[in-house]
Amino acid sequence: MNTDTNTETMMRAVSQQTFGSADVLEIAEIPRPKPRPNEILVKVHAAGLNPTDWKHRSGHGFVDDLPLVLGWDVSGVVEAVGIGVATFAPGDEVFGMLSYPFGLGSHAEYVAAPARFFASKPRSVDHVQAGALPLASLTAWQALVDNAGLQPGQRVLIHAAAGGVGHIAVQIAKSLGAYVIGTASSAKHGFLRELGVDEVVDYRTEDLTERVQDVDAVLDTIGGDTAMRSLHTLRKGGCLVSLIPVGSADLLREADQLGVRALRMLVDSSRSTLETISGLVDDGALRATIAGTFPLSKAAEAHREGETNRTTGKLVLTMDE
Amino acid sequence: MNTDTNTETMMRAVSQQTFGSADVLEIAEIPRPKPRPNEILVKVHAAGLNPTDWKHRSGHGFVDDLPLVLGWDVSGVVEAVGIGVATFAPGDEVFGMLSYPFGLGSHAEYVAAPARFFASKPRSVDHVQAGALPLASLTAWQALVDNAGLQPGQRVLIHAAAGGVGHIAVQIAKSLGAYVIGTASSAKHGFLRELGVDEVVDYRTEDLTERVQDVDAVLDTIGGDTAMRSLHTLRKGGCLVSLIPVGSADLLREADQLGVRALRMLVDSSRSTLETISGLVDDGALRATIAGTFPLSKAAEAHREGETNRTTGKLVLTMDE
Repeated sequence: MNTDTNTETMMRAVSQQTFGSADVLEIAEIPRPKPRPNEILVKVHAAGLNPTDWKHRSGHGFVDDLPLVLGWDVSGVVEAVGIGVATFAPGDEVFGMLSYPFGLGSHAEYVAAPARFFASKPRSVDHVQAGALPLASLTAWQALVDNAGLQPGQRVLIHAAAGGVGHIAVQIAKSLGAYVIGTASSAKHGFLRELGVDEVVDYRTEDLTERVQDVDAVLDTIGGDTAMRSLHTLRKGGCLVSLIPVGSADLLREADQLGVRALRMLVDSSRSTLETISGLVDDGALRATIAGTFPLSKAAEAHREGETNRTTGKLVLTMDE
Repeated sequence: MNTDTNTETMMRAVSQQTFGSADVLEIAEIPRPKPRPNEILVKVHAAGLNPTDWKHRSGHGFVDDLPLVLGWDVSGVVEAVGIGVATFAPGDEVFGMLSYPFGLGSHAEYVAAPARFFASKPRSVDHVQAGALPLASLTAWQALVDNAGLQPGQRVLIHAAAGGVGHIAVQIAKSLGAYVIGTASSAKHGFLRELGVDEVVDYRTEDLTERVQDVDAVLDTIGGDTAMRSLHTLRKGGCLVSLIPVGSADLLREADQLGVRALRMLVDSSRSTLETISGLVDDGALRATIAGTFPLSKAAEAHREGETNRTTGKLVLTMDE
């Protein structure tokens, strides 16, 4: 066996042979992908973790192929380009989100994917920061701007405002000139104030609909009862965007009766939105709070930490061991 | 067998079991796709034909799976949406280009694909017009704007300017305020003048490099010798964008020696660019010239017509039989 050749054609990845707890995650040596036409091969420097990673790991996601390599967030360096790619060249620093949900696999040393899923990495930040942003910021932008149509001066209620998507959504809403009401446990209210939240609510001790009224948009990352009650905080014609795809029939019916809109969405890739995000980052208007970084080999530990739902901001895998 | 159910779950598609001439195309009854998460199911009303269709049909494309349903262009109506799609609803009129090259399959009654590949159909035109535009206009925009960086007042040389991509590229370049030089056989010079081409060249009877000098950008849809000679029409620092992925090593070397840029690109999906295109159409600045429409059952005939390379503008398949 030629070891040199082998090193060049294989790579390490966080892989799983079965669905289950974080214990199913293992480091596997698998073939390094090759970029097909319109694809780029990216050497991953950092890759964010998102709640959808543990959902998929445990078999409650959309993807049922095994073995499975998780991960949609990427920040890294273009290693090679496939036929027809003119927008990037080897050596370019890029960040992006793989096609959600079926294009996953960024929790590895390399990933090959269509060039359209990537934009130039924001210049003012490192790979950890850039790798934390794509899925969370695309989600927040698509929820608040593309779907709720949030306008300057409008009022927005952001649930779990200290969480991965929430703390990014707060900053995007503020950059748009909105008035932001954020929910979190009291321990995180200081963090929310620092982010620029105008009004903080502890959803466990306060009555949401008594405290909050007449908002134009709600970002719901919690679902269930919280989503249902949040409908009652909206002005007529206001819009709740839910990232939780369950129980939506009841929610839609209730929204209809109240004269408000309720949408549920999944995040989707978009280079043009990534470019907007990148602009916000380089303008200093947007930063991911990094709750922790873990080397690839400690991915299981990172999952366990994330699943506590107690982290503030984002967890990120790095390739430096 | 329940025929009603069958009708609802099956559809007609232009299919092929082997690679070869237009004779391999046949109408097949295949399962109607279902939209997965983030996908929409579109009832196809019209679907453009492009040179890459006959290239792929004959086995000279990128896709080698059989049986194969060709087609990347779509204009139609959303029939159903998958989980998480909030941007479109059933009944919406959309147009788009499936993921190039591996997402093909629009030459059928229905197609399911990620919502991100679609935009709202331009309101001012019908499905035949909207179905003719996506691949050609994305190609032209990505070549001239994204890659060559064409600016108002600059000079651009567009080869095969009466062809599917060419005649769209002419209109995009004119809308950007560029000075357009177009090549075509003399019979098509009247058509080019009508499109707004400032200077017409017959590449078969005239010496290109004598006639044309000092251009900022070249759109090359021909390759080979024409591409090579076109490099000599560029000003220093000018850019040739080639859609022909062969012989590029020589081309790149020559470009390097001349102090010009040469890029080769494949078209890629982009909703934001489709929205720009749609705006040009609704402003009256862009129209596809329809060389002919053919019902799905006459797809082979449409291919034969397209392969003559003598058509002016676009061929389109329609679902009205």
